[in-house]
Amino acid sequence: MAVPGDRSWWGWGTDAGRLTEAEAGELVARVAALLPGHDLTAHTPPDPHTLDVPAPRVAPPASLAGLCSADPVDRLAHARGKAFRDVIRNLHGDLAHVPDLVVRPRTEQDVVDVLDWCTTTATPVIPYGGGSSVVGGVEPRFDGPAVTLDLGRLDRVLEVDPTSRAARIQAGAYGPALEDQLRPHGLTLRHFPQSFEFSTLGGWLATRAGGHFATLATHIDDLTESLRVVTPYGVGESRRLPGSGAGPSPDRMLLGSEGALGVITEAWMRLQQRPTWRETATVDFDRYDDAVAATRAVAQAGLHPSNCRLLDPAEALINAGATTTGGVLLIAFESADHPVDPWLERALELARDHGGGVLPRREREADAAQAWRSAFLRMPYQRDELARRSMLVETFETACTWDAFPALHAAVTGTAHQAIAEVCGGRGVATCRFTHVYPDGPAPYYGIYAAGRWGSTLAQWDEIKAAVSSAIAAHGGTITHHHAVGRDHRPWYDEQRPEPFAAALRAAKAALDPAGVLNPGVLV
Amino acid sequence: MAVPGDRSWWGWGTDAGRLTEAEAGELVARVAALLPGHDLTAHTPPDPHTLDVPAPRVAPPASLAGLCSADPVDRLAHARGKAFRDVIRNLHGDLAHVPDLVVRPRTEQDVVDVLDWCTTTATPVIPYGGGSSVVGGVEPRFDGPAVTLDLGRLDRVLEVDPTSRAARIQAGAYGPALEDQLRPHGLTLRHFPQSFEFSTLGGWLATRAGGHFATLATHIDDLTESLRVVTPYGVGESRRLPGSGAGPSPDRMLLGSEGALGVITEAWMRLQQRPTWRETATVDFDRYDDAVAATRAVAQAGLHPSNCRLLDPAEALINAGATTTGGVLLIAFESADHPVDPWLERALELARDHGGGVLPRREREADAAQAWRSAFLRMPYQRDELARRSMLVETFETACTWDAFPALHAAVTGTAHQAIAEVCGGRGVATCRFTHVYPDGPAPYYGIYAAGRWGSTLAQWDEIKAAVSSAIAAHGGTITHHHAVGRDHRPWYDEQRPEPFAAALRAAKAALDPAGVLNPGVLV
Repeated sequence: MAVPGDRSWWGWGTDAGRLTEAEAGELVARVAALLPGHDLTAHTPPDPHTLDVPAPRVAPPASLAGLCSADPVDRLAHARGKAFRDVIRNLHGDLAHVPDLVVRPRTEQDVVDVLDWCTTTATPVIPYGGGSSVVGGVEPRFDGPAVTLDLGRLDRVLEVDPTSRAARIQAGAYGPALEDQLRPHGLTLRHFPQSFEFSTLGGWLATRAGGHFATLATHIDDLTESLRVVTPYGVGESRRLPGSGAGPSPDRMLLGSEGALGVITEAWMRLQQRPTWRETATVDFDRYDDAVAATRAVAQAGLHPSNCRLLDPAEALINAGATTTGGVLLIAFESADHPVDPWLERALELARDHGGGVLPRREREADAAQAWRSAFLRMPYQRDELARRSMLVETFETACTWDAFPALHAAVTGTAHQAIAEVCGGRGVATCRFTHVYPDGPAPYYGIYAAGRWGSTLAQWDEIKAAVSSAIAAHGGTITHHHAVGRDHRPWYDEQRPEPFAAALRAAKAALDPAGVLNPGVLV
Repeated sequence: MAVPGDRSWWGWGTDAGRLTEAEAGELVARVAALLPGHDLTAHTPPDPHTLDVPAPRVAPPASLAGLCSADPVDRLAHARGKAFRDVIRNLHGDLAHVPDLVVRPRTEQDVVDVLDWCTTTATPVIPYGGGSSVVGGVEPRFDGPAVTLDLGRLDRVLEVDPTSRAARIQAGAYGPALEDQLRPHGLTLRHFPQSFEFSTLGGWLATRAGGHFATLATHIDDLTESLRVVTPYGVGESRRLPGSGAGPSPDRMLLGSEGALGVITEAWMRLQQRPTWRETATVDFDRYDDAVAATRAVAQAGLHPSNCRLLDPAEALINAGATTTGGVLLIAFESADHPVDPWLERALELARDHGGGVLPRREREADAAQAWRSAFLRMPYQRDELARRSMLVETFETACTWDAFPALHAAVTGTAHQAIAEVCGGRGVATCRFTHVYPDGPAPYYGIYAAGRWGSTLAQWDEIKAAVSSAIAAHGGTITHHHAVGRDHRPWYDEQRPEPFAAALRAAKAALDPAGVLNPGVLV
């Protein structure tokens, strides 16, 4: 297995990846300065071996026993995803909803056999990639037994087509292992979600993951050439096609199906040459409205930047160490084929037209973009460190049209601050960045950093989350742009989804999964 | 109604648009030179008023009578699409499968009422946009009565959002009327299928239409921000979103649903500024393999040309009047924001690297690209003129990966030539152009021009079509890249579609259209 052996059972990533004492000390000092008086005592996760995990309520047939683990710590580590609310529950040793077995198929036939067994015995089965869900997507949050189907052993790149630049890849491949296997071919999937190290291709496909890049080929949907899926109804595979108008897209029904319609076992994915030309710049603004207008102008210009990330002043301060009154726009272009200077120059011209001040090139090496990128991959570890110290640290995200953004943003930040006032006595901030930009709208990503009370941070966060989710829904945003629906977003998803589509999806689910065993409670 | 009143009941477009006598004479002379001895007698379509169209078998309720036409010629004109096989049947006065009524709703409530009536009485209803289907999509090819639901009166742009560059448009709007209403805003949908003049937004959405441009925002799928649909189950509307990861895309289930799941009544569509910068060039090749390699290089370079149309030697000769041994590549870039010279120069560099000879710029004004574009919109009228003169003139299209293209192309052209040999004594040619190119493959579009026998041309074409369709399927292509499935492509569509998806689609159809009245025989 390509995933590190020292994965944290309770928090993000690996034990080795956690903040060093020096890093933690520096972080704590910063927070202490911002929130004097907050109790920053570090609470320690329980030793998982001492927790009284209930015995499994189901036993596999002998033919599958070799694939199954009933180890309590293994089951604990698969019990939930990696959201703030998951980490908190783990820190408190909360044992609700631990799967009864973790099953690790070695072949597609194993997957078929597991689904057969689960269908026959009406045992819920939760497809599991890297387990990095932040929306309760992999948690058996229901009564009765559950089996977690961990696809991590199906981790190989099976075939590479360098002419069409595509590869057939097993769904359980983690980001780094997948890229390692593509690198000798000079190719890359170039899909880098923040969870890259600890998430899998199958998870990206099932949740419509968004990559790091701001425009064009960044969503896993658009990188998908064909899918292979195992359902209780049968196995299916779409044809490898660069485009097709033959009826509604079969792949688009599985993309985002979150394990409720079938188990994606492999996919032909579109690849790219590794980029060789890169240009980046940072633009500072005095007014946030101007910064938004500049970002919109770049998004609508047909330039297709690889990065077009607008940090609001709070985000710039907290995660990039930059001081700005209106916001900082990080712009980048990259190409495997040609220098990208004309593209960047035009983007900067647009930014200047909207009042942006472009930082001199010599400062770029150590500028906000660099600082922000370094912080990006460490954020989840910092989150864990602060969660242990009674802080509320969590994110949520949406997308809306440019037209709707000012009102949505005002409502979301207003609601967040009001909720922080009510729940945390006003001791906290909300930050915003754009992760992706489209010609018709941005994808704003919000962060909450607030002082909680140990033992209450879960309830405090849930209250804030419900408030901001309703604000998003009321202002036309999507309940999720790339974090998926899972169990946490269901109320707002149900409200957002057109009712005829809900009926169609329920019918499709009943046809493919007649026993209703696939990830029950998700989507349908 | 924005569609011209002199629409041809039997052939393409309008009576006024048909070839002039001089144009027809020139065309006939060219064909006579290529196919000496072919009988080019012009057969005349019957006077539709003299045809014995059966009386309607259904009568609408009084509340809907004002929307209904039982006029025989009106019904004849709605009886089929505009494929070669439709034109031939019309020329022969074939009266099979004429709808009993043409219903023209004025409001969405009218659509609801018509579906209610059809569901209650189990009367099949065929949603109809411009009627330009070339795959039997609008033809009531079944026993028993049928109602055609012509959406042409729902033809307005209802709302424009200039900030997000989007508009809410009724589904019955024809291309020119839609663009006329957007022009005062400086915006364009910029979706130009060959059928542009005689097809509607709703038709484009229901068939996943492909526009004229070779890359990026050209497919109607990608231009769609949200959809509003009437189904027997109820009315639904997706939220306006630039992107969303909330479950499988509701819109993608309706895009390509060909009237089988519901009637799309309006959509929010993504718009663009009207382009102001344009650069075009023409590249000539000695070898077709080199031309394909050059096209692939451009498609994979991340340059996103607006045009990247590779004509093979036969296509270049017949439709652009150009002589080439290896092929002609038409490349164009356009932008509303910036000059596009660096993009074009890099594309031409790639073409030269693969043995292409770039025509000098001074010749570009009157070069093959220009000739080809003029011919493009006249092609369907030429097709009709030749169909009347016992010629087989028809097209088919697919998409495949670059890897698969050489074998697919050899098989398709080989099969076409063999079929022309068997069916037409070898008197004919097959041509190929790429209409769209993707990083992972091209969309080849084939034309057949062959000498038939009057009275047999339908059967002759059907034989050729079946042979090439099977060749496409055997070599991994899609049965349609942008012509849709309709009734003509069903056997190959059923073979191509993954069986679990077919089951899901059947279930979705049963949920939304429990009486099975919506366009029966299409997709499900």
